[in-house]
Amino acid sequence: MSIIVAVDIGGTQMRAAAYTQDQVSPLQQKKIPTLASKPGGLERLFKVIEDVLPNDREISAIGIGSPGPLDPHTGYLLAPPNNPEWHNFPLAPRVQEHFGVRTFLDNDANLAGLAEYRFGAGQGHRNVLYITVSTGIGAGVVIEDRLLQGFHGLAAELGHSIIDPDGPPCSCGFNGHLESFSSGPAIVKYALAELEAGTKSILKPDDSLNARDIADAALKGDELAIRAYQRAGEYLGIGVASFLHAFDPSVVIFGGGVSQVGRLLFDPFEASLRRRVFHPRYLEGLVITQAQLGDNAGLLGARALAEMKSGFR
Amino acid sequence: MSIIVAVDIGGTQMRAAAYTQDQVSPLQQKKIPTLASKPGGLERLFKVIEDVLPNDREISAIGIGSPGPLDPHTGYLLAPPNNPEWHNFPLAPRVQEHFGVRTFLDNDANLAGLAEYRFGAGQGHRNVLYITVSTGIGAGVVIEDRLLQGFHGLAAELGHSIIDPDGPPCSCGFNGHLESFSSGPAIVKYALAELEAGTKSILKPDDSLNARDIADAALKGDELAIRAYQRAGEYLGIGVASFLHAFDPSVVIFGGGVSQVGRLLFDPFEASLRRRVFHPRYLEGLVITQAQLGDNAGLLGARALAEMKSGFR
Repeated sequence: MSIIVAVDIGGTQMRAAAYTQDQVSPLQQKKIPTLASKPGGLERLFKVIEDVLPNDREISAIGIGSPGPLDPHTGYLLAPPNNPEWHNFPLAPRVQEHFGVRTFLDNDANLAGLAEYRFGAGQGHRNVLYITVSTGIGAGVVIEDRLLQGFHGLAAELGHSIIDPDGPPCSCGFNGHLESFSSGPAIVKYALAELEAGTKSILKPDDSLNARDIADAALKGDELAIRAYQRAGEYLGIGVASFLHAFDPSVVIFGGGVSQVGRLLFDPFEASLRRRVFHPRYLEGLVITQAQLGDNAGLLGARALAEMKSGFR
Repeated sequence: MSIIVAVDIGGTQMRAAAYTQDQVSPLQQKKIPTLASKPGGLERLFKVIEDVLPNDREISAIGIGSPGPLDPHTGYLLAPPNNPEWHNFPLAPRVQEHFGVRTFLDNDANLAGLAEYRFGAGQGHRNVLYITVSTGIGAGVVIEDRLLQGFHGLAAELGHSIIDPDGPPCSCGFNGHLESFSSGPAIVKYALAELEAGTKSILKPDDSLNARDIADAALKGDELAIRAYQRAGEYLGIGVASFLHAFDPSVVIFGGGVSQVGRLLFDPFEASLRRRVFHPRYLEGLVITQAQLGDNAGLLGARALAEMKSGFR
């Protein structure tokens, strides 16, 4: 039986795994440090793939997930974070050439969404909206069993939806994006601004303050901290209302570190969503849930991409 | 050769046409008044279909376009405007039963988008964003050659994207939707509010004032009128920027009466879009253009739907 090789290039780790068609668990897997800013990244990538290749089986396809921006149609990385060596770099073509196997590339958020659709919280759904709330806000959208990629491969950048044209600056430099209201750094920035304005809180206006600290303070009843999450949840509800109007999915799946705070974020989110959805039918049968695959989403998404694109499944 | 029958149920006219696979022009067509508020709508619909049926040919499928909300998966109308007889009404199943032919239903904006993709300004594109700017703002989205419908059939309601959470009320009752900034009535409402606030203009604060009057005044150099279109165009650019981030189409097609004012709306639109798109790659090769099919979009869209869903093409 032939196999699929999946690679997940993360900020700190590069992971590879080999899968047969009938098993969710890999035959073999391996992880090594990414060392994005150090030369030799392509050789490290070749090596980690070689380390998981079984000797006796044919490889059907290779799937690779990486932070964007990238072009899934050509397999080029455009400008990966902290890695000048890989700017405008033909990653998938080079891997394809080296191993003689069809190779497919897409970004980490798209692939996490695809993984949840195939193997996680989206199983049984054909229209899936996956949103990761973390340092940034990313998304992956599946429409009628197909991953939404777009003409340039830049679709589903829902963290950069404009929620309020006069809103705060986003990490990308533009104003009022969902990410600028509801990501971890946005929550911290709001709390720091409130502290600076003299609002009472057990939080300290400290450079090391993070979204987890604010969640801890909120759970202790700190009003500023609670309000910081309420605001993030309210804007997340506004954004997701518009995404329902656009995509009309049957499941919304949340991943990412910030989404693990639970009701602190999701109570205000759900209240806001219900207040903003313009027709009640969007919510009929809609499942809102947490991602199930955790750290494995990247690898399983790269696997699902390779299977989907190669016709293996 | 078998044929497709298309029906376009408009606010004032109900039109039907019969098409062969190889011709864009219909074999036969007919139009009658819709008379939405009068009983007997289903019988009028049956009659207008019968009137275009050729005697000697097999019908492959029937496609019907109607104002929403409706459910394209079940073929039910949910709550068509001005027609209490057709609330929660199984329109496509009834037609299918009567003629013994597979019948498909979708809303007018989705079908106009599908028509432009197949026969109009979107030909040759696989990822199409169609936006109609008129009394309301509707949209139709084609992704990799497939019409975006969604789980409940309510996708692509882009006129109800939240552009500013504190924005003016939309016709649907919710606040800050694109339609509440950039539709014809929104342009009129802004101009009337400015007139009431004492802004100088050649426009008269009159109940009959419409978007066309304001366009005429703008073309004569009236500053208030120019500003009213500038504002509509700016918000349209904000909305479309988010739609590019979401769908990443290769063509954006504008239809609807308001979009016919030309540069008055589209100069500020394009400037706003360019200022708001968060990565220049979305604009590479992107075509922004006007709809080509005019009044025939509804019929051709219903035809394209029936062909697509029946596997006729």
